[in-house]
Amino acid sequence: MYRPQIKVVDCTIRDGGLANKSQFPLETVRAVYKAVCASGVDYVELGYRNSKEMFNPDEFGPWRFCDESVLKQATEGIDRGQTKLCVMMDAHKSSPDDLLPRSESVIDMVRVATYVKDIDKAIRLANTATEKGYECCVNIMAISHEGDQFLDEALAQLESETKALAVYVVDSFGALYSEVVDFYVKKYQGFLKTKEVGVHMHNNQQLAFANTIEGIIRGANYLDGTLFGLGRGAGNCPTELLLGFLKNPKFNIVPLLKVIPEYILPLQQTIDWGYHIPYMLTGILDKHPDVATAWITGPRKLDYTGFYDHVTDVP
Amino acid sequence: MYRPQIKVVDCTIRDGGLANKSQFPLETVRAVYKAVCASGVDYVELGYRNSKEMFNPDEFGPWRFCDESVLKQATEGIDRGQTKLCVMMDAHKSSPDDLLPRSESVIDMVRVATYVKDIDKAIRLANTATEKGYECCVNIMAISHEGDQFLDEALAQLESETKALAVYVVDSFGALYSEVVDFYVKKYQGFLKTKEVGVHMHNNQQLAFANTIEGIIRGANYLDGTLFGLGRGAGNCPTELLLGFLKNPKFNIVPLLKVIPEYILPLQQTIDWGYHIPYMLTGILDKHPDVATAWITGPRKLDYTGFYDHVTDVP
Repeated sequence: MYRPQIKVVDCTIRDGGLANKSQFPLETVRAVYKAVCASGVDYVELGYRNSKEMFNPDEFGPWRFCDESVLKQATEGIDRGQTKLCVMMDAHKSSPDDLLPRSESVIDMVRVATYVKDIDKAIRLANTATEKGYECCVNIMAISHEGDQFLDEALAQLESETKALAVYVVDSFGALYSEVVDFYVKKYQGFLKTKEVGVHMHNNQQLAFANTIEGIIRGANYLDGTLFGLGRGAGNCPTELLLGFLKNPKFNIVPLLKVIPEYILPLQQTIDWGYHIPYMLTGILDKHPDVATAWITGPRKLDYTGFYDHVTDVP
Repeated sequence: MYRPQIKVVDCTIRDGGLANKSQFPLETVRAVYKAVCASGVDYVELGYRNSKEMFNPDEFGPWRFCDESVLKQATEGIDRGQTKLCVMMDAHKSSPDDLLPRSESVIDMVRVATYVKDIDKAIRLANTATEKGYECCVNIMAISHEGDQFLDEALAQLESETKALAVYVVDSFGALYSEVVDFYVKKYQGFLKTKEVGVHMHNNQQLAFANTIEGIIRGANYLDGTLFGLGRGAGNCPTELLLGFLKNPKFNIVPLLKVIPEYILPLQQTIDWGYHIPYMLTGILDKHPDVATAWITGPRKLDYTGFYDHVTDVP
């Protein structure tokens, strides 16, 4: 038995791009796109459409900007099946002017990522996307650092002021336990009477997949994953685990089993994502993973007690 | 707030020994013992006391047998604090005669591992342990392959015929999802009116820690973990994650943060435990991990679609 409303979003290239400045070879992106489409996953996110005025194109790769020409190169000639294409736009690092009308674009959905403080920018961007013909979702980041009153107001605004299909619970720091996931999904449902709830979980405490299941049990219908959990720091909920769990017969795990060893595992040579004690500690302490990344890439990378002292001293 | 009844059992050396035929250097075992005792964990399990007639001592290391003299070498001179020492005995691979009276032993608790089919051997062994003065637990393995009627009868027998402190839900194949953990914990509680329920979870689907939390939420009070999840195949619930989650002030994670990089991570050079697609697939399919281990150590280790065909053809 399965829930037809459930939508899976594979954001391997977009989220993984946080770990390598979106510097994926075109061949890798095409292979991921092809495999995700063949697996029957509902959406594939190939990057950010962020502003070239806020990110230097000499430093960041093409998947940070997702020009239409680049997206066409990534997707042309590949059977997309029922899979839709999306990009993410950071509310505070992108421009509504960078969106063409949907009829002139290969993009189907725009996902707006925002902090609570930027919710009005996010709403403007979401409404621009809607007006230009795109589907739209909003991912609210870092909610574990937000006061309830501000988050509640943001949710009420998103419900009344946008046509977003879903609003996401994002566990930016990998800090949430199942009971906290329950709390947020229920809170979101209380405000979002005309929208779905989504979940985007991080794996600092090896809970990304479990928390995604917890979201499903509580009624979340938009689910993010990445291949082999690729992502910044400890990474994300592995898409292949999600497809192994979900019973919808349209999903097929086999194309994912093929692309993972060919294109994802080789990335381990340059991106050290996964379970590491420093990321575990920032998760437990509900802190940004950058402090752990800095430690791991420094001279005392295996001095975990030193990191513990360091991170518990950080206010 | 914490539940004082909760007992954590670190079984790094015992369970990890399944991945290296219990061939740990004495120095490693002493370091793990010292760190676990310093962390305030309730029990530390240093190996099996299995029969030398069923395991060849030339092939298996000393931690498969845990002779009293060996356990003394591993523990002498180390402040044990409140931490008790335990060994595991396989019901079908050990002899009750190998247990000294507790007054002559350094062991505090005997954990009996059994399949449902061997439950009468397990009960005899558990009762021998009780009569000789030891605390005792029973771990029922491979329950996801058991018919309910047989498991129910085994639980009823353990309740009425033994003085075991706890009986464990063991997810041998890493196949359980949270709702199945709920089902088993509730079933066990229905039979075990005078005993605690324990949980021992495997990490094939990155759910070992999450399922342990699920067990805690449902009332399980005996919790198994290993340092950095060391174990056969995908490994176990990491003890350090458990201590990060539990709020009992007697626990101290810092000694674990010290021993992991010094003694556990170096084992990665010879033991390849953790998240691998073949172990994920045996977890999803509720199959023994040995078929995955054989594949991973063979010439087609990264041919995951080949393994998928292989394992779905295995009856």
